[in-house]
Amino acid sequence: MQVTDGDRLRAAPKPSLDLLTRLLREDLERVNQLIVGRMQSPVALIPQLAGHIVAGGGKRLRPMLTLGCARLCGYRGERHIALAAAVEFIHTATLLHDDVVDASDLRRGRDTASAIWGNKAAVLVGDFLFSRSFELMVADGSLRILEILSRASAVIAEGEVMQLATTGNTETTEAEYLAVIQSKTAELFAAASRIGAVLGARPAEEEEALDQFGRNLGTAFQLVDDMLDYSAREAELGKCVGDDFRGGKITLPVLLAFARGADDERGFWQRTLEKLDQRPGDLERAIDLVERRGGIAETLARARSYAAAATRALAPFPDGPERRALFAAAAFAGDRSF
Amino acid sequence: MQVTDGDRLRAAPKPSLDLLTRLLREDLERVNQLIVGRMQSPVALIPQLAGHIVAGGGKRLRPMLTLGCARLCGYRGERHIALAAAVEFIHTATLLHDDVVDASDLRRGRDTASAIWGNKAAVLVGDFLFSRSFELMVADGSLRILEILSRASAVIAEGEVMQLATTGNTETTEAEYLAVIQSKTAELFAAASRIGAVLGARPAEEEEALDQFGRNLGTAFQLVDDMLDYSAREAELGKCVGDDFRGGKITLPVLLAFARGADDERGFWQRTLEKLDQRPGDLERAIDLVERRGGIAETLARARSYAAAATRALAPFPDGPERRALFAAAAFAGDRSF
Repeated sequence: MQVTDGDRLRAAPKPSLDLLTRLLREDLERVNQLIVGRMQSPVALIPQLAGHIVAGGGKRLRPMLTLGCARLCGYRGERHIALAAAVEFIHTATLLHDDVVDASDLRRGRDTASAIWGNKAAVLVGDFLFSRSFELMVADGSLRILEILSRASAVIAEGEVMQLATTGNTETTEAEYLAVIQSKTAELFAAASRIGAVLGARPAEEEEALDQFGRNLGTAFQLVDDMLDYSAREAELGKCVGDDFRGGKITLPVLLAFARGADDERGFWQRTLEKLDQRPGDLERAIDLVERRGGIAETLARARSYAAAATRALAPFPDGPERRALFAAAAFAGDRSF
Repeated sequence: MQVTDGDRLRAAPKPSLDLLTRLLREDLERVNQLIVGRMQSPVALIPQLAGHIVAGGGKRLRPMLTLGCARLCGYRGERHIALAAAVEFIHTATLLHDDVVDASDLRRGRDTASAIWGNKAAVLVGDFLFSRSFELMVADGSLRILEILSRASAVIAEGEVMQLATTGNTETTEAEYLAVIQSKTAELFAAASRIGAVLGARPAEEEEALDQFGRNLGTAFQLVDDMLDYSAREAELGKCVGDDFRGGKITLPVLLAFARGADDERGFWQRTLEKLDQRPGDLERAIDLVERRGGIAETLARARSYAAAATRALAPFPDGPERRALFAAAAFAGDRSF
């Protein structure tokens, strides 16, 4: 097996979320119970479909940021549980809506909710979870937190629509790509972290610092996500790669490979991503081109730089188990393989 | 042209929304301006797609209920404008999500947003409008109103999922059908009306009375909607009928025709609605069967009875131009042809 740039960059032991999950174990258990409780409905399809995605073994990274940042800010009450659940419901609704396909789309390799129950059910159950999220926030009663999360929801939707407009367009700029991932992904990480400072009644500078922490961490997280989709190593490990390729999504690894590619390579990207004319062997060639043009290494390097910025944003907070666990989460976001 | 039961029942001059629109003309103009302003976004597809449906000449019935009920309750401030816009945004988001189709669905006759821009764009712009709606409510700052409308949103989503489960099922009961329309439609009418009492700081009984007013009016409205989809008269006037039939939706006119039909008629409904095996002439036969089995007349009679209940719910309020305009709106909901 050839040793690649990506392999070299990722030779060190992987950072993990273990510190954070251990620190928050009890809180997280209560968040999970609340999530399961609040996704119930007399309409049987709702818990059925929501369960598929909510219980689907997500990392619960976003709610953990709310819990961890609240504790970092000295908050010792109970409100962070419901708000962490609200954050996860917004994320889940987004996932369900992101799975919606058009007739022209290629089916993904996975069993998405929309593939099993249909587009419409996925959309409507997403709406239900989104409404539940707002019910949880309203019951909490903080207009400031409602403001932060309703604003984030609007920005996420804008980001998703922006992404739709860049799909299949190899002329997308890096700035446009960054605007997409910062809206569709980083915004919720920023809001999830920021509300920790609101719960702890911390001054505006610390609220802003936690926003920057979450925003940079979220950007790193999405960059790695987009890198993993073209990772030869992941493919060898039997993980699912190529979703973005099959959907014609324009991500940084592709933008880099396109910009640095020879004419015939650009032709390849235009055929496969713009025209969605994909043939056997194309995904393998895409993975090879991304690797050879430095798309993996460069994307990973950028992710690490955002992760470092996330870490720096925590400077105003005192050292302690909370900050160390959040440091580790930032490192994980910038250097993970799942 | 044969004179039918439906024709006889509808021979009297049609009630209209004119009183209400005249009374609220200035407020409604401001609501429309706010709607257009708040659906803007640097992401061009959002105002484009939202404009298609928001500016698509809807009746603005739900926001008018908020405006009218607020005035009925003696409210003279400015908050009703933004809240009426929030109500309309929830409705618009629901419409966009209701248009989402599955690969198995038949395309409707109309230019739905999802048919023009695709499922995914319709879903995401719906999410954006839904988020905007919450931003408007949060800016208003009443947790009570946020509670009413976030609860209503969850119930609407439940109703839409319930409807999905009854689609194509001729064994749906009338009680199930009623539960569907009261959740997916009447709940927002109830919430839109109820917040008028909250704005006017009226006692709980009046809040409840306006909830009942809106709920009954909304039920009447949906019953007539479902009746019009099988109306021979509408078809003759060139209006679009048969959407529910093509989609296999189970509505009261069909439930009545099925329950009262002979064996061969039941076989017809099972073939066309359960198996969605529809042939040329089937819609015409469906319209004829619904009419002959009294489905039109009976649905209309029930709608009028809900409209009357809506009117009775306004008894605690003093006579005056507001109440008279809301009476007319209730009559319109139970007896309209558009």
